[in-house]
Amino acid sequence: MSSSPERLHAVRIVLVATSHPGNIGAAARAMLTMGLERLVLVSPRRFPDAEADALASGANSVLERAHVVPTLGEALTGCVLAVGLSARPREFAGRVLCVHDAARAAIDHAAWGDVAMVFGTEMSGLSNVELARCGIVATIPANADYTSLNLAAAVQVVAYELRLAATGGGVWPPPRFAPATVDEIEALYDHGTSTLTAMRFLDPRMPKRLLPRLRRLFARASLEKEEVNILRGILARIDQLVARRDQA
Amino acid sequence: MSSSPERLHAVRIVLVATSHPGNIGAAARAMLTMGLERLVLVSPRRFPDAEADALASGANSVLERAHVVPTLGEALTGCVLAVGLSARPREFAGRVLCVHDAARAAIDHAAWGDVAMVFGTEMSGLSNVELARCGIVATIPANADYTSLNLAAAVQVVAYELRLAATGGGVWPPPRFAPATVDEIEALYDHGTSTLTAMRFLDPRMPKRLLPRLRRLFARASLEKEEVNILRGILARIDQLVARRDQA
Repeated sequence: MSSSPERLHAVRIVLVATSHPGNIGAAARAMLTMGLERLVLVSPRRFPDAEADALASGANSVLERAHVVPTLGEALTGCVLAVGLSARPREFAGRVLCVHDAARAAIDHAAWGDVAMVFGTEMSGLSNVELARCGIVATIPANADYTSLNLAAAVQVVAYELRLAATGGGVWPPPRFAPATVDEIEALYDHGTSTLTAMRFLDPRMPKRLLPRLRRLFARASLEKEEVNILRGILARIDQLVARRDQA
Repeated sequence: MSSSPERLHAVRIVLVATSHPGNIGAAARAMLTMGLERLVLVSPRRFPDAEADALASGANSVLERAHVVPTLGEALTGCVLAVGLSARPREFAGRVLCVHDAARAAIDHAAWGDVAMVFGTEMSGLSNVELARCGIVATIPANADYTSLNLAAAVQVVAYELRLAATGGGVWPPPRFAPATVDEIEALYDHGTSTLTAMRFLDPRMPKRLLPRLRRLFARASLEKEEVNILRGILARIDQLVARRDQA
C-alpha cells in the first residue's frame, strides 16, 4: 500500500449545521487521533461552546483552528473533491462508494489539492441539495435495523479509513526474538520422537499422525531458539523420569 | 468477499473495568449500528447506570442483555479466539495485527464458535496479564502524537471492521437509468463534431485533441440515454444559432 501521510493535511472535515456542540468536540478528538486537523463548521448551532471543549479531550487545538462559515459552498472553496456522507440511499446520487473506497478516492485526489469529507446534521444528514455538491456519496455499511451512528462515531470511522488509505495502516511490530534454525528444529523432533517412544506414548511401528500433527503445530508457531531450548529441557526432564522408571 | 452476517452473532464485545458508564452506553450504540449485540462487562465501576442508558440512544436492548462478570477469564469462557486491543506496543505480544486483519481473523474463527474482542480501561488499556490471554493483539492505526481514541470510538472502529469482514461491506446501489447505446453515443459525437465545426470552435483540418478529450470525459461518465437526448437538444439549439448567424 502507498504511504502518503502528508495528504491527510489536505483533508477538511466539514460538519454542516451540527446541533450538539459535544459532537463537534468529540469529532475533533476523533479527527486528531487519525492525524486530521482541519475542521470546517457550516452554521453550527452553538460554537464555540464549553461542551465542545470538554469532549475534545486534548484535541482543543483542532477546535481553536476550526473555520466557521455560513454556507456549504464556502466550506468547499478550492476543493478538488467533496465526499458527502449519507446513511440512506438518495435518488440523485452520483458515484456511491463504501467509505473504504471513498477514502481511497479522497486520498488519491489529495495529491491535487484539498478534499472535503462532508457530514450533515445529527437528525437528518445532508439535504439533497447539499449532496448534489459532492462528487462522491460515501456510506458506512451499517445494521439496516439500527443505522443510528453518532456523528462523532461516523467521523471516527471516516478518519480511520482516511488514515489507512494515506499510510497503509502499518502497525507496531511484535517483539522479535532469534528464530530457531532448521537444524535445531530437526534435533528437537528427533529428541521428541525418542522421548515419546521411551514414554510409550508413541509406538514407532504404528506412529499414526502424531508427529505430523506436532510438526504442523510448531511450524505455524515459527519456533524461536529459546523456545526450542525450553522444549528440549522438558524432554530431558522426561528422559530422567523414564530412566528412573526403567531402573525400578 | 464472503458474506456471513450470522457470524456477527458469535462476537462478544468485552469491556474490562470500564470507568465511565457513558462509555458503556456509547459502546452499546456503536455495537448495534454494526449488528453486534453481545456485550460482556468485566467489573465495571458503575453498571447499570442512567448515564449508560442515556448514551445508548436506542441501543438499550444491548445494555439490558449485557453480562456482568467478575473476571476476564469468565468473560472468555467457551471462546475459540480472544482478540485484545492495544494502542501501544507490548513486549510479550503474540500475533500483532492491524484491526482490519484482526477482524477478518475473528470472523474466520467465528465459524467454529464464539470470539471475543477485548477492550481495557479508558486510562491504561489492558494489562499485560490480560493481553496474555488473547491469541491476537489488534491495534488501530492512529496518530502517533495523539493516540487517545475514546473507548466507544475504538469499539465503533472494531465493530465496523467486523461488519465489513462478515458482510463484505455492500452499499446501497446508486440510482440506475437506461444507458445510452453505442449507436446513440456515436450519433452524438457526429452531431457534436458537425456543430463544433459550424461554430468554428473545431477546425477539422487541425482537430488537435479536442474530440478525444470529450470522448474521454463522456466515457468516464457512462452516458445515459436521457443525457444523450439532453446534449443533442443543446446541439440542435446551437445549430439554430449558427443558421441565424449564417443568414445574417
